[in-house]
Formats: sequence, C-alpha cells, structure tokens
Amino acid sequence: MKMRLFTPGPVTVPQNVVDAASAQPLYHRSPEFMALSRSVWADLQTVFQTNDPVVVLGGSGMTGIEAAMIAAHAPGEQIVILEHGRFGQRLTEIARIHGLVPHVLSVPWGESITPDLLENFLNDLLNDLLNDPLNDLRGVWFVHAETSTGVLLDAGALTSTIRARCPDAVIGMDAVTSIGIHDVKVDAWQIDMAITGIQKGLMCPPGLACVSISERAEQRLLSNPRRSYTLDLHTVLDHQRDGLFTWTPPVTLVAALNAALKRILNEGLDNVWARQAASAEIVRQGARHLGLKLFGASTSNAVTVIEHHRSNEIRRELRDVHHMLVAGGQDQLSGKVFRIGTCGSTTPTDAHEITEALHTVLTHLV
Amino acid sequence: MKMRLFTPGPVTVPQNVVDAASAQPLYHRSPEFMALSRSVWADLQTVFQTNDPVVVLGGSGMTGIEAAMIAAHAPGEQIVILEHGRFGQRLTEIARIHGLVPHVLSVPWGESITPDLLENFLNDLLNDLLNDPLNDLRGVWFVHAETSTGVLLDAGALTSTIRARCPDAVIGMDAVTSIGIHDVKVDAWQIDMAITGIQKGLMCPPGLACVSISERAEQRLLSNPRRSYTLDLHTVLDHQRDGLFTWTPPVTLVAALNAALKRILNEGLDNVWARQAASAEIVRQGARHLGLKLFGASTSNAVTVIEHHRSNEIRRELRDVHHMLVAGGQDQLSGKVFRIGTCGSTTPTDAHEITEALHTVLTHLV
Repeated sequence: MKMRLFTPGPVTVPQNVVDAASAQPLYHRSPEFMALSRSVWADLQTVFQTNDPVVVLGGSGMTGIEAAMIAAHAPGEQIVILEHGRFGQRLTEIARIHGLVPHVLSVPWGESITPDLLENFLNDLLNDLLNDPLNDLRGVWFVHAETSTGVLLDAGALTSTIRARCPDAVIGMDAVTSIGIHDVKVDAWQIDMAITGIQKGLMCPPGLACVSISERAEQRLLSNPRRSYTLDLHTVLDHQRDGLFTWTPPVTLVAALNAALKRILNEGLDNVWARQAASAEIVRQGARHLGLKLFGASTSNAVTVIEHHRSNEIRRELRDVHHMLVAGGQDQLSGKVFRIGTCGSTTPTDAHEITEALHTVLTHLV
Repeated sequence: MKMRLFTPGPVTVPQNVVDAASAQPLYHRSPEFMALSRSVWADLQTVFQTNDPVVVLGGSGMTGIEAAMIAAHAPGEQIVILEHGRFGQRLTEIARIHGLVPHVLSVPWGESITPDLLENFLNDLLNDLLNDPLNDLRGVWFVHAETSTGVLLDAGALTSTIRARCPDAVIGMDAVTSIGIHDVKVDAWQIDMAITGIQKGLMCPPGLACVSISERAEQRLLSNPRRSYTLDLHTVLDHQRDGLFTWTPPVTLVAALNAALKRILNEGLDNVWARQAASAEIVRQGARHLGLKLFGASTSNAVTVIEHHRSNEIRRELRDVHHMLVAGGQDQLSGKVFRIGTCGSTTPTDAHEITEALHTVLTHLV
C-alpha cells in the first residue's frame, strides 16, 4: 500500500501536477518552454502578492535563501537574524559562512518573537551601533513559519517594527513553509526578498527555489560583488528578464510548477488559505480532543507539532499500520514531538483521516 | 505533433525513467528513499568507473562544477584551466569569482588541446612558478567534451601529462557531456573530481549534478574553508555516508536517475557507448555524404557540429516541418553552425531519421 505523506514537505502531488512533470522534457531554449517560464514567473508574482520579479532557480529552498542573502549583503555587513528554531539557525550559519556579521535575537524553541521583543532588541542594537559610525544595520532576516517548531510569526507586525527603525534595511524572509499556505503579503509588508521552495504550499515535487527581489534588494545586488556563479541572482534576474533561465533548469519541475500554480489560482488564493487553515484546525482540535498537548506558542497551518514522550512509537505505528508518514522532531525536539504536515494539496478529509488514525494508535498505546 | 529532441541535452527520456519520475514524491528521510539513494550512489560509481564516492546535489551540471572547484581550492591558489570552448570559459569565470588564480591555456574554438601543447604550457608555467617559492600549482581543470564545439579531448593522455609534471595537483574534469556517452575512466585516469549533469548521457530530465571525490580531493575539502552553505561538498559527503541527502533533494529526479542507471547498467556500459558511437557516426557520415563540413578537430559522440551559413534556416525547417529540435551555435559560432545531439536514449534509427530529415531540408534550401 502506498504511503501517504503528512510530512511538512514533500507533500502529495495532485494528478495534474504529476502529469505535467511526466511529460517529455522541453528544450530550455525553445519558444514553448520560454512561454511556460513566463507564465510561471507571472503566476508566482500573484501568489507572492508582489509586483516585484520572482526568480526561479534549481535546488532546494536553502539554495534560494543562500542566493538571496549573498545578493543582498556584502562581506562585513551587519544584519539582524531572528532565531526561533532550526531554520533560523541556518540563516545565521549562512550569514557567517559569507562573512556577514549577524546579531542574533533568539528565543527558546516553541516561543514566538513578538514585535515588542524585536523593538527592544533593535533599539539596544541601534544605540550600540550609533557609537560606531562605520557601522550600519543592513538587513533583518527571519523565518516566517518555523518548520521545526510550527511557530508562525506575525510577519506584518514585525516588518512594521523593522521599517520604523531601519527604513533602508533589506528585509529577508524565509517563506518556505508559508507561501501558498498563509496569506503572505510580500509587497504590503515591504519584504525585499521572500524565498520559498515548491514542495510545500506549491504542492510540487521538490527541486526549485523561488525568490522575490524588491527594488531595494535589486540595488544591493547590482552593487555587491559577485560571490558565486550558480547562486548569482544578478545573472538569474538579467536572464529572466530576457525570458530565459541561466543554466539548464529542471524543465520538468518548471512544467510541474506551472500546473500547480494554475491549480492554485484556479482554486483561488483565499480558498487555498481557507482549506489549509481548516485542515490544520481539524488536526489541532483532534489532538486536543485526544488529550494531547500542542507544542509551541502558535502553530502554522503547514505543520502541527504535538508533544509526546512516545512520539517515535506513534510515528512508527502510523506508518506501519495506517501507511501515513508524519515527521519527527529535529535536534533538541527529537523523540519529544511529532509533526503532522497538512499543507499543499491536503484536504479536510485527509486531516480527518490522520486524526482518526492517531486516535486508533493512541488507543493501542495505552 | 510532439517535438523530438536532438539537442545536446535535455534528451528524450525513456519510458521507465518517465514512470519513475512520475511517482508520488517519497519522504526524503524514509527508509524507502534512503535505499533508493544508496542504490543511485553505488550505480554512479559503476558508471563513473570509480571506487571513490560520487555525491549528488540538486541543481544543474554547473552547480556541481562550482561546488567541486570551491571544495578543491582555497582563495589565492593557482590552477591551470584548459579552454577550448564556452564551457572552459565558464571554468575560468568560476575560478575568478572564488579568488583563485587561473592560468589559462586556450585554443581557438574547434581546435583540440593536445598532450604536447599541455606539456609545453605546464613546463613554461612551472619554470615561472619556480622563481616564486610561495607559489604552487594546485590543480588542473578541463572540459572533456565541449558542448559548444563538439571537440572531445584525449583525457587519458592529458591526465598522464598532468600527473607526470604535477603529481599532487587536483585534476578536475567537466564530464557533463561525456559520462554515459564515452568510456570515461575516472580512476584509471586519476581524475580527482569528475562532474556530470543527468540530462545528457544519463538520459534523465535535468536537475541533479553528480561529482566524484577522490581521496586527494577529499583531503583538500577537509582542509579548505567552507565557502558556501548549499554548495558545500564536505557536508554533502558526510551526510551521504550516513545515507542521507543534506537538504530536501529533488526526490522525483533521484527516482528517475535510479531508473536510468538501472537501464544503462542493464544495457551494459560497453553497449551504451557503442550505441552512442554508432548514432553519432551515422550523423557524421550522413552530413559528409550531403557535402556538409563538420566543425572542429574531433567530434564527440554527444554532439555533431556542422558548419552552414544558413544554419538558422535549417534549424527552423527541421523544427517546423520535421518536428526535430537541434541546437544552434553559441556565442562566436551563433548562426554559423548547428549542433545535432545524439546522446542519452538516442538510437541509430533516430540518427538515420534526423539525417534523412536534414537531406530533405537541404534539398528545399537549394
């Protein structure tokens, strides 16, 4: 029996997306592929709710994040990173590798980063930097929805706080587990670079990263030194404006993304977000009803994190008996939580089914 | 009518590979996917003819080349690059971006780089470097088969020449258009890092790069500073040894690659190379028979480059009337040549058909 994915990506891929990915590869310089690419780029702008270009490059979400960060910042620049889980730590790791100077605002896993907390942190930091006229805060980076903890930040409120104190900073947001799941407003929130993969909210097989580039971010990437060949968004953006991908792209995944975006826009973004919210809420309610404790200050509609000291046994029985795959905890949460992903093509029916399966498993476990 | 690809990648994908790529994505940490990955890594060693690990990462062939070069070399290191076309130039570009000091041996497009030429170049260079005791030649990089010119170098003879003069240099080879097409002997030729994509000889849709890592190359990557997060082969190699991919990999493309490798090994490497040679020879003979001039000192079995001042018209008619896509010339060869790709799953029957179509087109053209 086929395993059903309730992991926070990859997700189950709808049939029309599977079909698109299964067609023979198009030649990446053919008019047919170039038309497909233009359609993808335009639809991504709609899903990102931005008028800025959204570039696409081969690789994972992390590829997009690394490319964005080295486009926005030159070595030696000071930036703020908000850490509330595993993926925030990765932002810091990438910043350090590229010689940036990250000031890290971190909270224990499961807690949120509130606008107040951020405002105090920025005030203190900007006061410190005042005494050092050479220094300047060049960017603020954060993860919208932490896949490791399920915590979703109030991105709109955070970006208002940032803009009020640092009008010229580049705001970078890892939106890998939020675009296509939550109502992410890249332009309204004044986010300069938002990054996603395609294997979560965009319900495709993994293998592409998408990055929005604001005018502010573009000015930076034009003036910053080129630090990579294949991660260089300057080249990628130039070529995209000519209707081309820079290097041989994963053409079948671009075709899949095209089909997925059409499906999403056909369902309607509001309906997609409502479906994702309903699915996650069913899992959350179900878990509470079963007497389980949800982990974390808030939980995104992509992934519900549930505490249990026998989480590995629960996962094993869900897999072996019910053919449903859920994720375990990462790092410090390993063995302490399990994570039920409900993004992408998941429906409320799926959410009911995993909740029922969980009920059965827990009955056995007692 | 469906377009048939006679481009030097992407190529037509065999049905069993299409089927593998069309399955629902596997969770990248599931035992099922880990078993698939291990099989892919082992089969790649067979195809590369190496006992060294061959790592796989998401992206294009260029992703693999950039990752390999920054793994092997630290900033400031001197290397030699052999340039005999567009892809050799890219090696130099990557080296410069990462602060290496490339000494370039270049020949006009279409000419070959012979062992004699290389030996003279190395002798002169090593004499110059002798006067500068701080300097040391740390690597030699070249493109085995230039996709831009069709010229295939005698890699075995070149690496003998390199090893005789520079026993400790890292030898890096762009084998994107030769692995799975020609008899590439990574170990016997003492190549430290060979890189390929999967959309040519490995007959998959594009989206993965494969890089072999010799013990010498591994020593280098262990001592070199980490200069990228997603291109860091140190991490990739470590995780691969644990049976894992480092970041969410393009799981459906890994499944496709698994099916393609099984197909190649089932056909037998000798038979695959013989089929590729036969297909290319049919195109070459056909072109000569039609009075056409082949471009370049030699022509690889991946791509036959044919000179014609009306090459764009020929390509257009092949496409519009015969539904066959061939590539044009790049850069300085634009409009002067067309390139017929016959690698991957192409058969001698396909090669006969494109030759016949070319005959018809030329008859019209006169």
